[in-house]
Amino acid sequence: MLPASLQVLIDELGRLPGVGPRTAERYAFFILKAPQAQAEALAQAVASLHGSIKACQRCHNLAESDLCDICRDARRDPDLLAVVESPLDIVALERTGMFKGLYHVLGGVISPIDGIGPDQLNIKSLFNRLAKAKPQEVIIATNATTEGDATALYLQKHMPAKVKVTRLARGLPMGSDLEYADQITLGRALEGRRSF
Amino acid sequence: MLPASLQVLIDELGRLPGVGPRTAERYAFFILKAPQAQAEALAQAVASLHGSIKACQRCHNLAESDLCDICRDARRDPDLLAVVESPLDIVALERTGMFKGLYHVLGGVISPIDGIGPDQLNIKSLFNRLAKAKPQEVIIATNATTEGDATALYLQKHMPAKVKVTRLARGLPMGSDLEYADQITLGRALEGRRSF
Repeated sequence: MLPASLQVLIDELGRLPGVGPRTAERYAFFILKAPQAQAEALAQAVASLHGSIKACQRCHNLAESDLCDICRDARRDPDLLAVVESPLDIVALERTGMFKGLYHVLGGVISPIDGIGPDQLNIKSLFNRLAKAKPQEVIIATNATTEGDATALYLQKHMPAKVKVTRLARGLPMGSDLEYADQITLGRALEGRRSF
Repeated sequence: MLPASLQVLIDELGRLPGVGPRTAERYAFFILKAPQAQAEALAQAVASLHGSIKACQRCHNLAESDLCDICRDARRDPDLLAVVESPLDIVALERTGMFKGLYHVLGGVISPIDGIGPDQLNIKSLFNRLAKAKPQEVIIATNATTEGDATALYLQKHMPAKVKVTRLARGLPMGSDLEYADQITLGRALEGRRSF
């Protein structure tokens, strides 16, 4: 019963992650009621996205030119390299404001079940990069999942010699109760205990 | 640290109702990872919305031509007319599958605090329509709010003579416990009790 052009928009919005028909309807009506200029700005932003974004030639982060903003930033410390799974992980690490080094995006994790081995990831380019740039420390910042751990292990084993390899600490997240922590998290927190 | 074109999209998506920066980010990354054709379909749907949707000349529902789909449908019963606040209310009523009449969209409710009186709503066109079409029953289906009730009262008082005016029943919503029902709802349910 809705006009076709509205229904088309609701269907397209309904493809977004976590957006059901009702939410899509709400978004579509909002866009319909918003000034035309705002709808056009949104349409333009969506339309131009794929054309303007590519992978950084050095670290595979999202970029609008050959190198990403971070690789082009001369103030970043080339002695520190964080290896992450995806560009979103860079966003999360940047938000902490505590890492001033460079990144390398793997583009996923080793997952034999999905047919993803080391060759499908940006691992060769990482090793080539390490051979040339020789940072002092490589921080493996894959997710704290089975696949993330397996990938970290693979990287650590095959790392070109003479580079310090570290990983993110495991332990209790901020604001958590011991009582409700799962046993693996608590076990890791115990293992990784530090003196005051 | 995100590419500008991605940040622009995140900002635009962040204007949607109930969408914060994190959700907007998630949507934007999803659109980035989706096939380009899908992103273009979404952009096209947003861009063409304002141009293709207008108000139905008879009932003020959303329409793509002079009359909306419902007004053009000869199978609808012209003896029943439901008066609603917005086109979304039509969607809700259509979903019940229990109303086969026509609609009239007021475009809001009487709300002196917001400077909205009867003249700002599609009330004159409703009365003109009633004078010509003479349906047997007008169902006032405004929201069950103070403003919705006040608008319903205004309409009922000023209705051209010789038309049956009804309103939606008030009572307990499906699946609700008496224990948790608010007193007004329960009071209305009591008032509107029906024999088996």
